[in-house]
Amino acid sequence: MLLAHLLCKGADPFGVDTQILPWDAARDPMAAARARMDAAFEFFTKLGVPYYCFHDRDMAPEGGSVAESSANLATPGRTRERATAGPASEAAVGHGQPVRTPALYEWRSHNPDFAVVARRSAGQGGARRHGGAGRRELCVLGRREGYASLLNTDTRREQDHLGALPATGPRLRAQHRLYRHVPDRTEADGPSKHQYDFDAQTVIGFLRHYGLAGDFKVNVEANHATLAGHSFAHELQMCTDAGLLGSIDANRGDPQNGWDTDQFPTDLYDAVHAMLVVLQDGGLRSGGLNFDAKVRRESVDLDDIFIGHIGGMDTFARALEVAFRIRESSTLTQRKQQRYSSFDSGDGALFEQGKLDLAALRNLAEQGGEPAHRSGKQEWFENVINQYL
Amino acid sequence: MLLAHLLCKGADPFGVDTQILPWDAARDPMAAARARMDAAFEFFTKLGVPYYCFHDRDMAPEGGSVAESSANLATPGRTRERATAGPASEAAVGHGQPVRTPALYEWRSHNPDFAVVARRSAGQGGARRHGGAGRRELCVLGRREGYASLLNTDTRREQDHLGALPATGPRLRAQHRLYRHVPDRTEADGPSKHQYDFDAQTVIGFLRHYGLAGDFKVNVEANHATLAGHSFAHELQMCTDAGLLGSIDANRGDPQNGWDTDQFPTDLYDAVHAMLVVLQDGGLRSGGLNFDAKVRRESVDLDDIFIGHIGGMDTFARALEVAFRIRESSTLTQRKQQRYSSFDSGDGALFEQGKLDLAALRNLAEQGGEPAHRSGKQEWFENVINQYL
Amino acid sequence: MLLAHLLCKGADPFGVDTQILPWDAARDPMAAARARMDAAFEFFTKLGVPYYCFHDRDMAPEGGSVAESSANLATPGRTRERATAGPASEAAVGHGQPVRTPALYEWRSHNPDFAVVARRSAGQGGARRHGGAGRRELCVLGRREGYASLLNTDTRREQDHLGALPATGPRLRAQHRLYRHVPDRTEADGPSKHQYDFDAQTVIGFLRHYGLAGDFKVNVEANHATLAGHSFAHELQMCTDAGLLGSIDANRGDPQNGWDTDQFPTDLYDAVHAMLVVLQDGGLRSGGLNFDAKVRRESVDLDDIFIGHIGGMDTFARALEVAFRIRESSTLTQRKQQRYSSFDSGDGALFEQGKLDLAALRNLAEQGGEPAHRSGKQEWFENVINQYL
Amino acid sequence: MLLAHLLCKGADPFGVDTQILPWDAARDPMAAARARMDAAFEFFTKLGVPYYCFHDRDMAPEGGSVAESSANLATPGRTRERATAGPASEAAVGHGQPVRTPALYEWRSHNPDFAVVARRSAGQGGARRHGGAGRRELCVLGRREGYASLLNTDTRREQDHLGALPATGPRLRAQHRLYRHVPDRTEADGPSKHQYDFDAQTVIGFLRHYGLAGDFKVNVEANHATLAGHSFAHELQMCTDAGLLGSIDANRGDPQNGWDTDQFPTDLYDAVHAMLVVLQDGGLRSGGLNFDAKVRRESVDLDDIFIGHIGGMDTFARALEVAFRIRESSTLTQRKQQRYSSFDSGDGALFEQGKLDLAALRNLAEQGGEPAHRSGKQEWFENVINQYL
Repeated sequence: MLLAHLLCKGADPFGVDTQILPWDAARDPMAAARARMDAAFEFFTKLGVPYYCFHDRDMAPEGGSVAESSANLATPGRTRERATAGPASEAAVGHGQPVRTPALYEWRSHNPDFAVVARRSAGQGGARRHGGAGRRELCVLGRREGYASLLNTDTRREQDHLGALPATGPRLRAQHRLYRHVPDRTEADGPSKHQYDFDAQTVIGFLRHYGLAGDFKVNVEANHATLAGHSFAHELQMCTDAGLLGSIDANRGDPQNGWDTDQFPTDLYDAVHAMLVVLQDGGLRSGGLNFDAKVRRESVDLDDIFIGHIGGMDTFARALEVAFRIRESSTLTQRKQQRYSSFDSGDGALFEQGKLDLAALRNLAEQGGEPAHRSGKQEWFENVINQYL
Repeated sequence: MLLAHLLCKGADPFGVDTQILPWDAARDPMAAARARMDAAFEFFTKLGVPYYCFHDRDMAPEGGSVAESSANLATPGRTRERATAGPASEAAVGHGQPVRTPALYEWRSHNPDFAVVARRSAGQGGARRHGGAGRRELCVLGRREGYASLLNTDTRREQDHLGALPATGPRLRAQHRLYRHVPDRTEADGPSKHQYDFDAQTVIGFLRHYGLAGDFKVNVEANHATLAGHSFAHELQMCTDAGLLGSIDANRGDPQNGWDTDQFPTDLYDAVHAMLVVLQDGGLRSGGLNFDAKVRRESVDLDDIFIGHIGGMDTFARALEVAFRIRESSTLTQRKQQRYSSFDSGDGALFEQGKLDLAALRNLAEQGGEPAHRSGKQEWFENVINQYL
Repeated sequence: MLLAHLLCKGADPFGVDTQILPWDAARDPMAAARARMDAAFEFFTKLGVPYYCFHDRDMAPEGGSVAESSANLATPGRTRERATAGPASEAAVGHGQPVRTPALYEWRSHNPDFAVVARRSAGQGGARRHGGAGRRELCVLGRREGYASLLNTDTRREQDHLGALPATGPRLRAQHRLYRHVPDRTEADGPSKHQYDFDAQTVIGFLRHYGLAGDFKVNVEANHATLAGHSFAHELQMCTDAGLLGSIDANRGDPQNGWDTDQFPTDLYDAVHAMLVVLQDGGLRSGGLNFDAKVRRESVDLDDIFIGHIGGMDTFARALEVAFRIRESSTLTQRKQQRYSSFDSGDGALFEQGKLDLAALRNLAEQGGEPAHRSGKQEWFENVINQYL
Repeated sequence: MLLAHLLCKGADPFGVDTQILPWDAARDPMAAARARMDAAFEFFTKLGVPYYCFHDRDMAPEGGSVAESSANLATPGRTRERATAGPASEAAVGHGQPVRTPALYEWRSHNPDFAVVARRSAGQGGARRHGGAGRRELCVLGRREGYASLLNTDTRREQDHLGALPATGPRLRAQHRLYRHVPDRTEADGPSKHQYDFDAQTVIGFLRHYGLAGDFKVNVEANHATLAGHSFAHELQMCTDAGLLGSIDANRGDPQNGWDTDQFPTDLYDAVHAMLVVLQDGGLRSGGLNFDAKVRRESVDLDDIFIGHIGGMDTFARALEVAFRIRESSTLTQRKQQRYSSFDSGDGALFEQGKLDLAALRNLAEQGGEPAHRSGKQEWFENVINQYL
C-alpha cells in the first residue's frame, strides 16, 4: 500500500487531472495533506490491510526552505502519530520522494553543484516510513540519479559522490535501513538517458565497491526490471544470489510501452516466478511487497482504486500459493538441483572449492572423453507452472 | 582485423552460404585453414595494416577430441609461425571462439555438468592471438555464458563456477592477459535469455567480486552496448571510470534490429564519442581496436570485404582526429570540468573526501538557501560535435 | 503441427547441431526426407492429432535446378500420397519455405534482378500443404521480403513487384488459398532492417492497395507480433476488424530477446486474449492454429519434442475454454458493448452513418455542455481474466 | 519554429517547472498568451526565420466551455492578426493541440462516448496555424487516438468513427489541408498502449480505406518513427512512395530512451537520409519542416533556446547541401537505379506491366538457369555518405 497514489489524479504531460478526488478539495497544502491521510486510513481499514507505507512528502508538503519543509513534517500533529502508530509490522518499504521545488531539475545527490548535493541531502531527512514500527528508510538512488549526456557529465566523480553520501555517518547507518531502487531509467523527460542504478547487478556492484553492502539492500521494482531488459524474477534472483534483496515494488509496466506505466500487477506468471525466487530465499525477511501503482488515467471512479489494489493483492496471494505448491508437490526443485549434482562430490566438488587448475581440468577432459548430452528439459520446467495455476 | 571473418560466407539460419570464397575450396579442414591463413595475410598486406588478430580456431579446425584439437593447433607448421611472427605489435585482442562440436550447446564454462566445464576449459587453451608479440588472450565469458530459463538454472552456482575458473592458477594469470566481452546476450537462438556478462557494469562487478580485476580487463563491443540498452560511449566510459578498459570490438548493430548484426562501423558520432572517452583516458594502452564485423549477406563481391574494412578504418581514423581537435580547440573539456568546480575546494572538497556527514550537509543547506539555477547547456555540448565534423 | 521442425537439430550461427535425430541418419537427401516423413506420421499418430501441415521442402529436398526441384517434389511416391491423404480436414496452413540454394540471399519476390524474381516464382509452386484436403497455400511474403538499406533500394518498385506477383493469373487465385506472414522482420542476419510485411496493418493496407484482399488472408504469428511492437491479440484484432484473419502460427518469442526464438506457446494470458478475439469473430473459419515452434537447443531428448507440443496444445485448449467461459458467464462482453451505446441511436447513430458534419457536431457540443466522466474500468476488465483462469 | 515550446518550462511528471520564463509571469491566461506571442515574434525576428507555426492553444487558452474557448481564440486582437499576418509563406504545419480540460482523458475523436466525440470535434476548430497564409490545418489523429486495453475497446468501431470524422463535410476539406501525425504511441502515461496512427504504413492504409487520401497528407515526426521501430527516412520513404508526404516534425528522440523526448535534431546522418528522400521526391511541396522540440529540463538559460533552434536549423541546412552534392556528384542514384534495370525492358518490363503469369515466370526460370550473383554493395552505399559529410 502506498499512500502516495491517493495523490495521483490522472494528469500527464499532455493533459490535466482527470480524477476528482474528494480529499484533495482543500486549497491549503497542510489541510489537504491531513485530509489525504484520513482518506488513506479509511482506505486501509476498508481493505483490511495491516501494513502500509508512505513517503514523508505524502504526509506533509514541501516548504520553501529546508527549515519550512522540516517544520511541515513535524507539524501535522495527529496525522503524524497516526501514520507511525498503526499495527506493529515489518511493513513494506520503498523510496523517498525527492522534494518538488523549482530546483528539482538537478535535485540529484550527484549534482555537479555541491550546493544542490547539500540541499538534496537535507531533503533526505524524510523518506518512506512504514506503519507501526516507526522506522524510516532512506533512498540513496532515486529517480533523478542519472545523466542526460556524457558530454557534460563526469560520471566517475558523480558516482563517487553518490557512494560517499550514505557513508557520511555511522549514526545514519544505525538509524535507517536503506534501500535503493533498481532501475529507474524510465522517467518521462527526466535526466535519465542513463540511470546510475540501471539494474540489480549494477546496484549490487555499486554497494560492494563503496563498502555499503552491509548497510543497504536493494528494492526491486517489477516495472524497472523489464525496462532494463530483464525479467522481474531475474532481478530478484540476482539480489538473492548476493544476499541483498530488501523489498519489492510490484507495480508492472506494459510490454508494448517503453516507459514506466506503474500499473497494478495482474500477471500470475510474473508473480509466480517472483514468489519462487522469494520462497527459495526463505521469504522476504525484513522488507515487504508494496504497490507503487496507480489506476489508469481513464479510471475515474473511486471504486477503481479498490479494484486495482484488490486485484493486485489477489494476484500475489494466489501466486504465493501456486509457488508453494510447486515447491512442495512437484519435482521442479529437485530436478533443478540434480542438474548440478556433478559438483556435489568428486572432481566437481574439488573444482568448486578452487582446488583444480586449468591443467588439471584439461587432464580430466582428456581422460573423460566427450561429455554425454543431457537435456535442459526447459519445456518440462515451463509446463510445470501451468499445471499448478 | 579479424581473420575469422574471412570464414563467413553469408549463411544464416534460413539460407546457405551466399559468398563463394576461393580460399575455402579445399575439402580438407587443415588445408582450408592453411589457404585461409594465406588469404588473410595477402589481405593484411594489401590493406597495409601492421596489426591483426585471430581466434585459434581460425588457424586450425576443432578436432574430435581434446587431443586432436590440440594437435591441429600445433600442426599447421608455417602458418602458425606466420601468424605469430608478424610485425611486433600491441595488437587488437578479443574473444576466444568456443569449439564447434556437437556438445557445444552446453559448451559453457558454467555448465551444470562438470564434465562439460572441464572439456570447455581444455578448449580454452586457444583463444585469440595477435600478430607479433605471440601473446594469447583467454576469454572467460563467451557467447554461451548465460541461461535460457531461470526455472532450471542455479545462477549463483553457475556464476561462482565462472568466477572460479580464471582463478584456478597463478600461471594462467601470468601467461595471459585476459579480456572478456560485454555484453553478449544477443546470439540468435542461443541459450541467452540472459547473458551473465550483460553489460560493462555487470562485468566490472563480477571482476571485482571474484578478485579478478587485477588480471582481467573488459573488451567492449559496440554492437553489444546498444543491445544492452546503453550507448557505445557509455560502456567505454564505465570501463575507464573503473580503470578496466581493455580493448574494443568496433562492430556495430542496426538501430532497427534487435540482434547482433556485426556490421562495419560507419557512424562518425559513435566513433567520435568513443574516441573522446579513449583520449580522456590517455588512449587505449595495451589493447587495440578490432573489427569483429562481416560484410552483408548480399555483398558477394570480393572487393566488398575491402570496402567494408576500409570504410571502418576511415571512420575511426577521422573520428580520432575530430575528437583530438575538439579536445584541443574547443572549450568542451574545460566547461565540463567547470561544472564540478564546487567540489574542488571548500566544503565541496571536504564532502568529496568523506569529511561531511548528513547533519553537516543539512546545516550547510539551511545556511546556503536555495541553490542557484545553473544550466546544463546540453544543447551547446551536442552542437560542438557538429562544428568539428 | 509443422513437419518442418522435426528437421531442426539445434544448430545456430555459433554452433553445430546438438540434437541427434534417428530419422536424419540417411545421407541421401531423398531417403532422409522419406524417413522424416515416416517419423512425422508416427509422431502425429502418437499425439492423436488429426491435423498437420508441412512445407513442400520438408517432404522433398531442393534440387540444383527448377526442374530437379520439381522432380524431387513429384518423386517421393508413397510419402507424397501419405502426406496429402490423411484425415480430411481444414488443416492449419502457413508459409512456404523458400528454396535453400546459394542464390537464396536474394531469393526474394521483390529482388532487384528480374531473373531472381522469376526463379523465386518457380519455387512458389510448392508451399505449405495440409493434411487431407490436398490443398496448397502460396506464401507471397516470406521471410526475405524486406530491405537491408534504403540507400540501395527502390522500395516503391519492389513493393509494386510484390503486389504484381500474386495477381499474375486467375488460375493461381482459384487453386490456392494464399496467406502471408506478419511480420517477419526478425530473421538473424537476413536482409531485414525492414520487412515489407512489418505488421498486420501494413499487410492489410498492402492487400487492399493491390486489389488482393478478396483472394488473400493474413497468417498471424505470435512471435512476430511482439517483435513489431504489438501484442499477439492486437494483430489478430486488426485482422478480424478487416475480415482478413486467415490462420495463426502460435509460436512465441521471449520478452527479453529481440529476435525470433520460435518457442512453443505456454502463456495462458496470450492464448486467452487470442481466443477472445477469435471467438468474437466466430472462430477460425478455414484456417487453423499451427505451431511453427522448435524445442530449445539444449532440449536434446526425443521426449522433449512431445513435451513441447503437448504443452502448447494444452495451453490453447485451456485458453479456449477460459475465453468461452468469460464470454458466457461474465459481463465482460456486455460491458464493452455498453461503453459504445451512445452510438447505437440518436445523434450518435447519425454520426456513425456519416450524417453529421463538423458544424452539427459543434452545435451538439455547445448544447450538451461538458461531457460526464465515465470510467474506462480497465482494472475491472483485466481482473476478470484471472477470475476465470 | 513552434510557438508552443516557448510554453514549456521543464516540468515533468516528477518535478515542477525548472525554467523561469519572463513572458509567463502574468497570472491572467489571456495576458500570458499575449506576452508569449510577443516573445515568440521577438524570437522569430532575432533568428531571422520567415516561417513559423503554432497551435491555436498557444495563442489563446482553453476556456471552460466550447463558447468560451472559441471566444478566447477570437479575442486576442492584435496578437491574432499578428500571428496570421506574417510574411507570406507555405509554412511548416503540424498537429492541433487538444484542449486541456478535465475531460481530456477521453478527449479522443474515437471516444466510446458520443458526447466526447462531439465535444472533441468542436475543439477541432483550432489547430496549428502557420505564418502568413492564414491557413489552418486540422489534426485528425492526435496523441490521444489509441487504446489502453483491447478488453474494453471496440477497435473497429473506434476506427470507423475516426474515419467518419474528417469526411463529415466537403467544406472541411476545402478549407483545411489536413495532416496527421505518425506515430504517436509514446506519450507518457497516456492511453496509448497502441496508437491507431502507429506508423506511416498504418496511416496510409487508413487514409486509403476511408477515402481520405485525396484530402489528407501525413506529417512525419522523426521521434515517432524510431519509437515505432523504423528509421526516420523509412517513414518519409513510405509516404513519398504513396504520394502522401505532407510535412515533417524534425524533433528527435534518444536511442536509449523508450519515450518521446522531443529533442532538437543534431544528427547529420538522420538529416541527410531524410533529405535524400525529400530531394528524390522533388522537395517538400506545400508542407514544411518544423521543430516540435524543447530544450532539456536542465537547460535553464534563455540562450539555450537559441542554441537548440540554431543547432537544429544548421543540421538540416547542412544535410540538405550534403544530400544535394551526393545526388549531383556521386554515382549513388545511378547505381541504385541500375540495380533494377532488368525490369526496364524485355521480360522484366512485361512482368512489371502485369503481363506474365506464374507459368510464364516458371518457364523463364527453367530456361534461364540459376541467376548470377550480384552484390548489393551495401558497404559502398553506406560509405558514400561519409565522403560527403
